[in-house]
Amino acid sequence: MSKVFLVGAGPGDPELLTCKASRILRSADVVLHDSLVSEEILRLIPQSAERIDVGKRYGYKLLTQQDINSLLVAAAARHQCVVRLKGGDPLLFGRAAEEIQALREAAIEFEIVPGISAAFGAAASARVPLTDRALASNVLFTTFSRSPEAQQFLRSALTADTTVVVYMPGLHYAEVSNWFQQAGLSPETPCLVVSKATQLDQVTHLCSVAALATISPLAAPALLIVGRTVAPEMAVPAGVNWLRQSGRDRISSDTLIS
Amino acid sequence: MSKVFLVGAGPGDPELLTCKASRILRSADVVLHDSLVSEEILRLIPQSAERIDVGKRYGYKLLTQQDINSLLVAAAARHQCVVRLKGGDPLLFGRAAEEIQALREAAIEFEIVPGISAAFGAAASARVPLTDRALASNVLFTTFSRSPEAQQFLRSALTADTTVVVYMPGLHYAEVSNWFQQAGLSPETPCLVVSKATQLDQVTHLCSVAALATISPLAAPALLIVGRTVAPEMAVPAGVNWLRQSGRDRISSDTLIS
Repeated sequence: MSKVFLVGAGPGDPELLTCKASRILRSADVVLHDSLVSEEILRLIPQSAERIDVGKRYGYKLLTQQDINSLLVAAAARHQCVVRLKGGDPLLFGRAAEEIQALREAAIEFEIVPGISAAFGAAASARVPLTDRALASNVLFTTFSRSPEAQQFLRSALTADTTVVVYMPGLHYAEVSNWFQQAGLSPETPCLVVSKATQLDQVTHLCSVAALATISPLAAPALLIVGRTVAPEMAVPAGVNWLRQSGRDRISSDTLIS
Repeated sequence: MSKVFLVGAGPGDPELLTCKASRILRSADVVLHDSLVSEEILRLIPQSAERIDVGKRYGYKLLTQQDINSLLVAAAARHQCVVRLKGGDPLLFGRAAEEIQALREAAIEFEIVPGISAAFGAAASARVPLTDRALASNVLFTTFSRSPEAQQFLRSALTADTTVVVYMPGLHYAEVSNWFQQAGLSPETPCLVVSKATQLDQVTHLCSVAALATISPLAAPALLIVGRTVAPEMAVPAGVNWLRQSGRDRISSDTLIS
């Protein structure tokens, strides 16, 4: 009997795989993985296992979701232990719903193994609480969208005591900065940009929502954490100054850049 | 030199610890843990290590947050490897902000190790996507609160395409059911109640938001996942029928209870 495991690869650091994910990955016969899963993690896959990169990077489509679903079903016909390895957690912004549906329709046994979603890896690296009894009682996970509905949603959901995490902010930070300000967020609201959270080449920028407009886009995968918990003791200027932190092993070496 | 690790214990299954958390836990000299961290995980602590249960259960306060902060600082004066083990992820609803502040004031080195938050463990066990391109583009993590501000926030943040996860719903499910309906949620909206997610005695109830009012409270830690992704193909009756799933190893044995 074959079985498909939808496995969360976590944010990048191989030590942030769960013990279960690590065990299953090491016994995989075939691994279908996203492009953005870190090379350090892909090295854990047995040499004997088949590897299929099904990822899409920067909007350039290698395979459609339908293609991936078909590959998954086909892999289960050939192999016992099929791993679908997804960045972060498979159930958050990972299109797992469509893969689950395809597996159900093909009557293939499957199991979901959660992963550390990028927001939690980024927050831990940057030592930023997502909630705080004095500052934030809610956390919203969302993506940047130009649709009027998304703008309207953000406007109504944004309150001073909500931390907002934006996955896949894209490359147009000026638009994202406007999106936040048009939704009613103060230009001085602290904003943390994290690229490649917990990977060796992690880069973190701390700035204001207004200054976000002036930053060069960081390498994918990136995310934004926006809200008062990001810098509770700091008045972040609305200008272009920011703090930079780089590298998984150098995360406490903050530098003020002017 | 001593160091404090704020470590996420994940939802309960010891295999859902990250590899890093498992490694650090096994080399701990002292562990200050929440009461709700599962016994299976506590068994990983070395026999030689000191163990301090700092948890609060059902509102009965064993120690204040200030007491915990003081214990943490005192432990760092006595031991090299101090682990503060928190259920789920330390930075989400874990009061880590206050412990971080205390460690900073005492100039104690610390590191944060993320964990699988209960929502991700519960969603994986129940095979419920948190987002879905057709059904939900946002996820809100919040707690049940009787304050008018929380009610107002929920009213504005609730849209048909947002999945809401309520941590610590408490014991008064009828109040929570009203809270949702007064915020504008349809009584038929599917709602998943998960108790002790990923532990051996996990219990899961699927019902409508209206029927939530009739359910006996489940053992802590519990959470609710509310929204269309919970049961996309099912018309959940507004009555008292629900599905029950029990036990980590029996999660696919659904039973319809009338």
